Amino acid sequence: MNVELKDLAPLLLKKERAGGNIDPAVIADVLHFSKEKNARRKEMAAIIEKHPVLSDRNMLFRNHSERYNFGLKKAYSFIQLLRDLNVTDKDDQQYLYMSLGEPLAIDVHRSMFIPTLENQADEEQQKKWLPLARNFKITGAYAQTELGHGSNVQGLETTATYDKKTQEFIINSPTLTSRKWWPGGLGKTATHAIVHARLFLDGKNVGIQAFLVQLRSLENHQPLAGIEVGDIGPKVGFNAVDNGYCAFHNVRIPRDQMMMRYAKVLPDGTYIQPKSDKLVYLTMVQVRAYLLVRMSQMLGMAATITTRFSAARVQGRTPDGKGEFQVLDYQNQQNGVFPNIAVSYAINFAGRNMINLHDAALDIIKSGKGSFGDQLAELHAVSSGLKAWIAEHVSNGIESLRRMCGGHGFSNSSNMGHLHAEIVGACTFEGTLDVLVQQHSRYLVKVLLAPQAGNASTGFLSRAKFYADPSLRCKAQKPEDFLNFTLLREAFEARATRIVIRLAKELQATKNDLNKCMVLMTRASIAHAELMLLTAFIEGVDSIPAGPTREAVAVLCGLFGLWLINKTLGDFREDNYISSEQAEFVRRQLVALLPIVRKNAVLLTDAWDYSDFELNSAIGRYDGDMYRALVKRAADEPLNKSQVPESYEAYLKPLIQSGL
Amino acid sequence: MNVELKDLAPLLLKKERAGGNIDPAVIADVLHFSKEKNARRKEMAAIIEKHPVLSDRNMLFRNHSERYNFGLKKAYSFIQLLRDLNVTDKDDQQYLYMSLGEPLAIDVHRSMFIPTLENQADEEQQKKWLPLARNFKITGAYAQTELGHGSNVQGLETTATYDKKTQEFIINSPTLTSRKWWPGGLGKTATHAIVHARLFLDGKNVGIQAFLVQLRSLENHQPLAGIEVGDIGPKVGFNAVDNGYCAFHNVRIPRDQMMMRYAKVLPDGTYIQPKSDKLVYLTMVQVRAYLLVRMSQMLGMAATITTRFSAARVQGRTPDGKGEFQVLDYQNQQNGVFPNIAVSYAINFAGRNMINLHDAALDIIKSGKGSFGDQLAELHAVSSGLKAWIAEHVSNGIESLRRMCGGHGFSNSSNMGHLHAEIVGACTFEGTLDVLVQQHSRYLVKVLLAPQAGNASTGFLSRAKFYADPSLRCKAQKPEDFLNFTLLREAFEARATRIVIRLAKELQATKNDLNKCMVLMTRASIAHAELMLLTAFIEGVDSIPAGPTREAVAVLCGLFGLWLINKTLGDFREDNYISSEQAEFVRRQLVALLPIVRKNAVLLTDAWDYSDFELNSAIGRYDGDMYRALVKRAADEPLNKSQVPESYEAYLKPLIQSGL
Repeated sequence: MNVELKDLAPLLLKKERAGGNIDPAVIADVLHFSKEKNARRKEMAAIIEKHPVLSDRNMLFRNHSERYNFGLKKAYSFIQLLRDLNVTDKDDQQYLYMSLGEPLAIDVHRSMFIPTLENQADEEQQKKWLPLARNFKITGAYAQTELGHGSNVQGLETTATYDKKTQEFIINSPTLTSRKWWPGGLGKTATHAIVHARLFLDGKNVGIQAFLVQLRSLENHQPLAGIEVGDIGPKVGFNAVDNGYCAFHNVRIPRDQMMMRYAKVLPDGTYIQPKSDKLVYLTMVQVRAYLLVRMSQMLGMAATITTRFSAARVQGRTPDGKGEFQVLDYQNQQNGVFPNIAVSYAINFAGRNMINLHDAALDIIKSGKGSFGDQLAELHAVSSGLKAWIAEHVSNGIESLRRMCGGHGFSNSSNMGHLHAEIVGACTFEGTLDVLVQQHSRYLVKVLLAPQAGNASTGFLSRAKFYADPSLRCKAQKPEDFLNFTLLREAFEARATRIVIRLAKELQATKNDLNKCMVLMTRASIAHAELMLLTAFIEGVDSIPAGPTREAVAVLCGLFGLWLINKTLGDFREDNYISSEQAEFVRRQLVALLPIVRKNAVLLTDAWDYSDFELNSAIGRYDGDMYRALVKRAADEPLNKSQVPESYEAYLKPLIQSGL
Repeated sequence: MNVELKDLAPLLLKKERAGGNIDPAVIADVLHFSKEKNARRKEMAAIIEKHPVLSDRNMLFRNHSERYNFGLKKAYSFIQLLRDLNVTDKDDQQYLYMSLGEPLAIDVHRSMFIPTLENQADEEQQKKWLPLARNFKITGAYAQTELGHGSNVQGLETTATYDKKTQEFIINSPTLTSRKWWPGGLGKTATHAIVHARLFLDGKNVGIQAFLVQLRSLENHQPLAGIEVGDIGPKVGFNAVDNGYCAFHNVRIPRDQMMMRYAKVLPDGTYIQPKSDKLVYLTMVQVRAYLLVRMSQMLGMAATITTRFSAARVQGRTPDGKGEFQVLDYQNQQNGVFPNIAVSYAINFAGRNMINLHDAALDIIKSGKGSFGDQLAELHAVSSGLKAWIAEHVSNGIESLRRMCGGHGFSNSSNMGHLHAEIVGACTFEGTLDVLVQQHSRYLVKVLLAPQAGNASTGFLSRAKFYADPSLRCKAQKPEDFLNFTLLREAFEARATRIVIRLAKELQATKNDLNKCMVLMTRASIAHAELMLLTAFIEGVDSIPAGPTREAVAVLCGLFGLWLINKTLGDFREDNYISSEQAEFVRRQLVALLPIVRKNAVLLTDAWDYSDFELNSAIGRYDGDMYRALVKRAADEPLNKSQVPESYEAYLKPLIQSGL
């Protein structure tokens, strides 16, 4: 080969694109919800790319303090930008914000503080506080989690004691572990916080309520009397955010700073119970649905980077000795990368379903027509299970894609470590796996015992008797039969049904001792989540116009199903639903699909339609020109500003010139 | 409960220890090789803990430049310490170095540069260079990897052209991608480097050789003429190290700076072929063996932290409403944590085996008695497979243990992110998974086709006919039967044999097209690695004195086996070797073991015997006093030095006081 590697890399990527037969733009418009929305998204990203401050991508040269301070500069510029361009559309704002490439200290102000005011403040409170918050005259945190308690809200220790005489609440942190811990923006930025505390009225504990508490002076930003506040230090991700702690030492706030839309405390201390609030659940579902889509995008970015790298990189001599393999030629690389492309699509389709179901439920609520209790319960349960599965698989998928880039994946120039660090928190926030799979699987047992009409994602449980029959067998006669979506889906329904039945029996046998059934509950949740993902993917295939593009996505969908079966083969082999011979069909068909997916692999990730700026990866460039990009990026490293490092005189020179 | 959480946490950990019935010290002496060695290790760690500079643990407050510069300060102090205390024993030096908690810029100087001089320089070269290197009058890098080529040494592009007239080699980087890329210490620290380059003699390429090249002036540390050198920027881990790049522009070095112990170039340009060098392979095995042990220790540290945290943390009300569950009460938590404790033990035992086998082989070589070709080939192959499996499982295990600590695991105060970042590189360096599993599985096929006597870890392949019989069935009649080590081991031997046979057939069918068999090769490597780990664990159990302690470790070993079977149940179910009913036995027995392991879980991780200083984790403290430790650690965060952040005036104040 006389072509230099640096020139070969772009050629190889071109060759991959020329060898495919699909139109990535068609898929891009599906993945990003519509042609118009995708165009708008790219327009907004291009604005950020041109901005002198907001285009900054040097975050990983900085420590936590530096990232926080530069992050404030970005936040300021971002708000200026919204004003200067008069961007009022929420989608546009979100597109701009996501293009920043890292969450900032104003993240929670936007995503939690303002929405809480919108949803939980009464009309009068909204009139007073919302304009201030929306104009950033106050900045807010959402202070629920405490040092001693995370997701168990009922265990919170912060107290709010009503003082009838002065008509004030006294907010107090009675113990060390009651200090608020973790809220984003709380450490150094927020002037106010929504504080969750246990409300005491006449000495009686009436449960957890939300209060608006001012933390810092609006004049000079100093903490107010009785407020002890600071940053909790560096973390695995979110280092531009000042996740903080706060202790309250008998801080008094006026009565009208309890969020009063639902529960109320009257001036004389009378407590008015909140009506059941289905909207709160629905908000939780909405947050999760958008998080699912966000996670699909993050995995899509990582899959794009690794696929392009694998195509442009050569390694290892071909048997004829004439050239080198592209890394993407290797069966193991295909076997590692392609399922992750498939997972990114499956999650996107499942997330979109969830958003649609949420929107439909909201319409029903707003119209006041029809009951929707069942649907809401289902939405809440299945979004729990999906979130648990997806957070794990997106995080693990990005990390595994990173490792598949070898040494270059380990360097931050690849951006793979950053993508992982900024999404892996999703395994923890908005509910950890253990809590979520319980919510999900208990609901599945409930539906099994009392099937409900009209609930799309659990409808298969009405055929439980059919699937429970231990003589039922998968009908595949040859490996290719596993590409039949009906056959595939039936296998996943059979598997999920059987585990849910087993769980129902186990719950009965243990008299509902949930903790003795938790491992089984996890299996049930996973089995159903995977069924939902497969179903969403199959429906997603149908949403693409017929032709080679749809066919290629259908192959990816088949790969997804086979990959899932192979991953948990033991489940499918139960009662020999899938025989030992069929298991081997699954393995063979999975490997047989790899070269077929390979044909369009680069285009299937081009379909994610992320610009080089958005990917921010020297090795994931659209044009494959990675080696020049790596050299250029290394030149930016601050250590390279001088030939001799600053600590040479103190620590190297004495050694080298005098020795040990 | 009237006890505050902060006081409850230590009590809970005490309760766990009181409830156990084993002696962790007995296990500690096994895990750390002997009572004497463990005592020495702790002594050395205590020296570091007391040192004003070397005890520093603020690395995660720093960016890459700061970590590098502070790292040089540590390196200087470390070398001073060795001199002041006259520490010459290599084990002692290593104990001290490992206690630093992060690799430094002198890492490769110690682990690769000096050993290369010791192993590949001839006597004269050693006499000249070794004293300089050992006394740090020169500092070295090991420059093999290039921008365009990693593990494929044969593809390196750097050239070394011999100039007969001047008796010099001309080292050159002919392309952009030939620049050295990644070597630790190369960026800003090294004065010299071992450079791998393609040697040209009279225009003829005679292959890759190693050369000693001076990079920087010993007077002022400026790069020498023709040397372009710098740091490649921040990475996922090793940020105190200046991984670097270097391009050579026709740099001349004297003839006697080629490493001449094996290959030689005479003054007239005559090339003398090296004799076959088995020691090079053996060195590779040695490096791997110690890496395995190191990885077991890192997982042991993470398992200790998560187990202690899970015991000391409460979450979620018990059904009687009277108290809260310890996180360690949850079946899912046990199911996630305990297998990782087991894996840490299994790896430690397997690593120790490898060290012993290496030492025995070295003795044979040194004595010059006996042939050891077969053993060496086996050692090299199986250490490849073990390294691949272990690097993946240790990295994934630490990350999963981190997630099991909820929000507190996400904070760097837990040290979990740091432990992961500093070991996950092992998935990449010293061979990526794909390369390693090929070396391993090809060897297995070779042994299958021509069984060799005396090779312990592949001996089972001589019973291939027995295991290949598709009518062979696992003999378990009830769940507990899976705790029988003979039965367990047989299941793993049957599984490994069958996959290796399948691979042999597939290789034949594809006419040895390795790339078409790679997924299967990976399965074969994993199956054998898991058999070796189980075997090592079973032998490890025997090395513990009889009594409750040995029994507890035996239970952990059973858990390990069951966990492995359950993880890849499809393999074991092939040809119904394990029946559908037995598969359910496996699941039930696995869950049944959890409360039994729980009884001693804290003590089984205390057995790793790491001090609070070594663990460096606020939530993993021996005394369980984690909440005070978290508060104390947050106070150290540099952002908390002032109440108002430095960028307030510029970016927050204008917003808050004027609004959007």
